[in-house]
Amino acid sequence: MRAIVYTGSGGAEVLALAERPDPVPGPGQIRVRVRAAGLNRADIPGMEYAGEVDATGPGASRWRTGDRVMGLAGGGAQAELLVVHQDTALPVPVGMSWTDAAAIPEAFLTAWDALTFRGRLQRGEAVLIHAVASGVGTAAVQLARTMGATVLGTSRTAAKLDPLRALGLDVGIDTSKGSFAEQVAVPVHVILDVLGGPAFQDNLAVLAPRGRLVMLGFLQGPAVPQANLGMILRKRLEIVGSVMRPRTDEERVELAAGFREQVLPLFETERRKDGRTESEGTDGPSVVPSFRPSVRPVLHAVFPFSDIAAAHAAMERNEGVGKIVLTW
Amino acid sequence: MRAIVYTGSGGAEVLALAERPDPVPGPGQIRVRVRAAGLNRADIPGMEYAGEVDATGPGASRWRTGDRVMGLAGGGAQAELLVVHQDTALPVPVGMSWTDAAAIPEAFLTAWDALTFRGRLQRGEAVLIHAVASGVGTAAVQLARTMGATVLGTSRTAAKLDPLRALGLDVGIDTSKGSFAEQVAVPVHVILDVLGGPAFQDNLAVLAPRGRLVMLGFLQGPAVPQANLGMILRKRLEIVGSVMRPRTDEERVELAAGFREQVLPLFETERRKDGRTESEGTDGPSVVPSFRPSVRPVLHAVFPFSDIAAAHAAMERNEGVGKIVLTW
Repeated sequence: MRAIVYTGSGGAEVLALAERPDPVPGPGQIRVRVRAAGLNRADIPGMEYAGEVDATGPGASRWRTGDRVMGLAGGGAQAELLVVHQDTALPVPVGMSWTDAAAIPEAFLTAWDALTFRGRLQRGEAVLIHAVASGVGTAAVQLARTMGATVLGTSRTAAKLDPLRALGLDVGIDTSKGSFAEQVAVPVHVILDVLGGPAFQDNLAVLAPRGRLVMLGFLQGPAVPQANLGMILRKRLEIVGSVMRPRTDEERVELAAGFREQVLPLFETERRKDGRTESEGTDGPSVVPSFRPSVRPVLHAVFPFSDIAAAHAAMERNEGVGKIVLTW
Repeated sequence: MRAIVYTGSGGAEVLALAERPDPVPGPGQIRVRVRAAGLNRADIPGMEYAGEVDATGPGASRWRTGDRVMGLAGGGAQAELLVVHQDTALPVPVGMSWTDAAAIPEAFLTAWDALTFRGRLQRGEAVLIHAVASGVGTAAVQLARTMGATVLGTSRTAAKLDPLRALGLDVGIDTSKGSFAEQVAVPVHVILDVLGGPAFQDNLAVLAPRGRLVMLGFLQGPAVPQANLGMILRKRLEIVGSVMRPRTDEERVELAAGFREQVLPLFETERRKDGRTESEGTDGPSVVPSFRPSVRPVLHAVFPFSDIAAAHAAMERNEGVGKIVLTW
């Protein structure tokens, strides 16, 4: 099979396609013929995929060959074939394209886990999402809306904020105009942060008493020049670090099981709506009995696997809203 | 009634006894004739008390006049009379002295809340307790032992560590000999920290993956000169600030209810044991069917309320193990 591999030491500039042996599914595993894979900053090529079940290992009876699946992987998803634990795979929503499906796992699982389990976001609370135009950001905006929260989001590019309002962004904060802390006018109960050290003190400042700061990344580095932890104690804050990569298969299986039940139906709603809100439906009475907010993957761009360098360059330019996806 | 009050602006040096009007219990409240009160660094005189129910407000039927109670208060416990919500009060263990009882609430409720709800300490895990010779520290050591944890504790005074071994301290760390981080040889799952900023980076360093840092105070101040948050993300750590003072009556009631059921029986076990371990019992078969670890309040010193200045001076000297208690 062909796979994206490191051809030397370095960053994205040494990534290239190469021939590798086909992986063989072990007990409880399935082999997936990858059709598309989301691009991420993580250093192992291929954290997420969408494709067809191609072979099953001993005792793996959950899926049949040809089933359309998507999911998170510990690496190796930027390849023609990928082996994963069968219970970490999720069904691709009916009618969804491979590229759309490949934009779901990392963004929506990360955002859902962060909002629900790490942040314990409640109906009526306010959530602040940094880098809201990112893949995780665009997923988090939509999920936070389904949870009944007020959604605030930051971006360094004002033009990225407008398209997010249709997804559920209530308050867009343009950080090119100044500190986000000065622009946040309500107490924030949950923050999803990908900025890191330089935003730390302002994050503590805007949190409400008993607020939760969920750290998902360090785009601006981990260093805080002059930290003052006083507010952690006074406001009884929680800070929790959350990354997907080091998680065990057991953790991935548990997360996938919850996601299948709680989140996947929200994509189906979207498909039935066909892009229109229910009140705008023109094809007779809706099959959905009452209004239910829906979610959808947001794609910035699609690149062929052979253009991996161009895909990474686009990610570095950081000009778009949503995910970059690779396809064969 | 007489009460400890601030006679001017400043710290403990302006505290003195003064006459104040007797407080009147409102709906659902009880008035307690305070017999003893624990001393704390908090700036409101009187966070905890032990005494007799003296009067009951409208609808307050939980206690009868003369019942022996103890508990946390939002302030005002360094007085002859104190009014509290009836459901925040706890029964004094049978046979326990007023001064022993007054040493329980703040130390044991804080330690239990921190270990159980904030730190989620599990059997077989390791917990590191800073300033382990303090009131909260001596309570936490004993409770952590009942939870089946390995207990590590720090002190700047080596001589304080020895008496704590009998309470359950497995590893005593003398911080006058150097950084605690260099002396911690096992991954730590939960830290109870009262030191604050200067210990922050070392706390992150000694935590195991998914470890929990519970911040209870800032004896060394809240500032961290050069914080690096990298480990929060990499090890998926949790940091949570926890203080008793700003809690609502609803939170105090819930905490007291759990404490009554889960922790108070451990003091009763101690009383039955009469200071001996069960295997040493000389008075026939134990009434306790199987071994159950017990806990007890640890008192450093008792002062009369009229010596409030001397009591605070003793707290500042920081020479003892356990609590300082005031009594009429």
